[in-house]
Amino acid sequence: MDYTNGEWRQSMRIKLDVNNMFADNVGIEHGITRTRVNEWIEKANDAHTALVRNREKGNWGFMELPYTQKEVIAEIIRYVDDNKNRFENIVVLGIGGSALGMIALQRALNPFYYNDNVELRNGFPKLYVLDNVDPEWFGEFLEHIDLHRTLFNVISKSGGTAETMSQFMIVYNILKEELGEDVKNNLVFTTSEDKGNLIKIAEIEDIYTFVIPENVGGRFSVLSPVGLLPAAFVGINISELLAGAKYMDQICQKQDIWRNPAYLNALLQFLAYNDGKMISVMIPYSSALKDIADWYAQLWAESLGKKADRNGREVFVGPTPVKSVGATDQHSQVQLYIEGPFDKVITFIEVEEFRKTIEIPNVFSSIEGLEYLGGHTMNELIAVEKQATELALTDNHRLNCTIKMPEINAFTIGQLIQFFEIQTAFTGELFDVNAFDQPGVELGKEFTYGILGREKYKNMKERFENRMEKDSSLII
Amino acid sequence: MDYTNGEWRQSMRIKLDVNNMFADNVGIEHGITRTRVNEWIEKANDAHTALVRNREKGNWGFMELPYTQKEVIAEIIRYVDDNKNRFENIVVLGIGGSALGMIALQRALNPFYYNDNVELRNGFPKLYVLDNVDPEWFGEFLEHIDLHRTLFNVISKSGGTAETMSQFMIVYNILKEELGEDVKNNLVFTTSEDKGNLIKIAEIEDIYTFVIPENVGGRFSVLSPVGLLPAAFVGINISELLAGAKYMDQICQKQDIWRNPAYLNALLQFLAYNDGKMISVMIPYSSALKDIADWYAQLWAESLGKKADRNGREVFVGPTPVKSVGATDQHSQVQLYIEGPFDKVITFIEVEEFRKTIEIPNVFSSIEGLEYLGGHTMNELIAVEKQATELALTDNHRLNCTIKMPEINAFTIGQLIQFFEIQTAFTGELFDVNAFDQPGVELGKEFTYGILGREKYKNMKERFENRMEKDSSLII
Repeated sequence: MDYTNGEWRQSMRIKLDVNNMFADNVGIEHGITRTRVNEWIEKANDAHTALVRNREKGNWGFMELPYTQKEVIAEIIRYVDDNKNRFENIVVLGIGGSALGMIALQRALNPFYYNDNVELRNGFPKLYVLDNVDPEWFGEFLEHIDLHRTLFNVISKSGGTAETMSQFMIVYNILKEELGEDVKNNLVFTTSEDKGNLIKIAEIEDIYTFVIPENVGGRFSVLSPVGLLPAAFVGINISELLAGAKYMDQICQKQDIWRNPAYLNALLQFLAYNDGKMISVMIPYSSALKDIADWYAQLWAESLGKKADRNGREVFVGPTPVKSVGATDQHSQVQLYIEGPFDKVITFIEVEEFRKTIEIPNVFSSIEGLEYLGGHTMNELIAVEKQATELALTDNHRLNCTIKMPEINAFTIGQLIQFFEIQTAFTGELFDVNAFDQPGVELGKEFTYGILGREKYKNMKERFENRMEKDSSLII
Repeated sequence: MDYTNGEWRQSMRIKLDVNNMFADNVGIEHGITRTRVNEWIEKANDAHTALVRNREKGNWGFMELPYTQKEVIAEIIRYVDDNKNRFENIVVLGIGGSALGMIALQRALNPFYYNDNVELRNGFPKLYVLDNVDPEWFGEFLEHIDLHRTLFNVISKSGGTAETMSQFMIVYNILKEELGEDVKNNLVFTTSEDKGNLIKIAEIEDIYTFVIPENVGGRFSVLSPVGLLPAAFVGINISELLAGAKYMDQICQKQDIWRNPAYLNALLQFLAYNDGKMISVMIPYSSALKDIADWYAQLWAESLGKKADRNGREVFVGPTPVKSVGATDQHSQVQLYIEGPFDKVITFIEVEEFRKTIEIPNVFSSIEGLEYLGGHTMNELIAVEKQATELALTDNHRLNCTIKMPEINAFTIGQLIQFFEIQTAFTGELFDVNAFDQPGVELGKEFTYGILGREKYKNMKERFENRMEKDSSLII
């Protein structure tokens, strides 16, 4: 494959099909009309202007990532080349935006049994992403791997994430006991250039560090060293990821809402939300894309779920993302999606060409009810099931759209990421909320600090204790 | 542990804490009052009567599973003892209700790295559950394992599930080529006693078969041979699972809604739904319980998501389940749950005693912002984070409840399963829908049959072709 070939790139363009968001297809009671979209063009133009302004000012760093990281990539590749043979495992210690992107990249772009098979790894280490502080998981993990042969990539922009820092402290302590001064050889940090505790520790301990740009927030950071370093460590072509992001970024700079897929989808999702369709279901028909839905759920929920708009008015808005996978969830969630309340928009992701073809043989063809399967491929089956579900939803007046991926590769995944990030930023403009903060989680953090005895948060502990008394007759 | 000890069992009773569903805690605007619950007591009594009647009539087989399977268990254990040493892998070919239960059991009750470590397996085979028809996954899987050393457990009650049957046909064809007549030794079926194609094939090919009782539906079948056979194959104590289910079943037979956790939770969830809280989020604070949320999502969505009530009136009801995991999703979804629309009820699952204790050492204790972590355990951290999130939600007037599990073991997981199944059946009564059918997925299946050329569904193909024409200007 000549990746730099323009024709190949064009054949790999992902596309958005929004036919079934419109009244023509799903009916006038629930569908959106072109007229209505056009009524929003002025507002959309304002949102576009805001995006352009923020791009120019460098406020939203994710928009720059496809353009500005030539040196970063070179450094990552050099670092990986120098180090990959020293390690059997690379372990990401991170949570939320520091983990979800890499989990999605790994499942999308590497073989399903990558960790289990040295040949599939092709000289690269195994990957583990530990994105929880579950003592059972973490304890079993520490027994499972050989720490000496493991590189820990600690990822936290603030250096203050309780989960990641406690994981780090545990690992550091064990490594220190076993390796002494050499502990630094098994650690690499990804953090802010000059803020927080990780960078302080890096200086004290002389630990190699990659930088998360100040203007890139956690959930928009997968195409910064947060995702790129571990991705390169498992053999993913990170230049292609960025090339894909750049390709889509250029498509999504068009002002015309009818020609800009990120804008059009943002507006349609926004209008549907205003019509009471406040649940946003994503169903990739591909096991490899399952975790993309998980990554997207954070992006969508944390960016748009806000109590106040930018004027400080209480709005309590935000669509609720639901992650799903096809064809599997036809046997789980689709009953509800077809027959339940009209409170959802479904986004399918369809893969046009899978990396393998599996034929269904003509066996038991004399048995009625099996005869129709033989001679087809599994590829046809999953494609047809998606189309059938799409039509069943449409016939039942359920709004849905489809993202069409020619195939799953680093170039198309890069496009998908940039597409969703721009869509999210644009939707934030339509909702008039700050899509780049997360004030709602502060209170929980402060309670945690207080309960665990952090001096500065003493009053939170008292508040907690006063509130947590419960009526035991309501515990049964 | 003396499992049969009554005191131990009592200490392992899971409990439901609904304090934060009530106005006293979350405020009168969103909270439910005791008075309101009491107003529903007559309706609840009717629902109870319906459950009792259906139990007596044997309509809802899941209620009988804890009581009637002594011989089934003996047969399963005998079969597993006779066969487990012959195989390196046991593979479930199933989807939806034939897969989600076993996936949840495996993650909850076996070590996280079970498949990777022969010692952890303790003489039992590896487990794979293939619940999709993704050609990439299926193809890679076939390359990954040694088919000769693999037992395929094909699970489909109807024997007509397109996904499972095509997987079976592919595997059968390969096994047949390689093993000839011995193919039957690598297959075991779990299906209806006398209906459908799997039982026909079992007779033709002389394949060992376990029976799914007629009165047990797919999503209620995890405690039938559907889940019990593969569970026994990976060393799970299936008698304890059923003992737990029986223990909870007896608790949940009480008519008094204030003393019956399944009934009380059903009613509270139902009232919340009627108040516009139509999203039902489940957050286990435990990585091991992550897939329980997935299993539950099917149970809740497919049972309650219905277009028509039992009188045939169009109602379009059904809460939308959302699966989540703590503490991880504090860095993803919780922002939305705390600040977004008041359209959710959160159900936490809390584990009181984890199977491991992990200490956070006193390192870097001179650095402000890390000093408070050292000396605590990871167990405390995850417990405190749950409590902090619970209180932050409550303070923001968000309805939430907590299921408290003393620890994760077969007995408590059995309780949890039975609890949710009874809660679902009872909620179905409150909504006045049939919780045991799934008519909405038929249309999609018929389109699939039609497109793939099944003679009987020719008209569906035409209907599909007429409807699928699209406006290309809406594909960008």
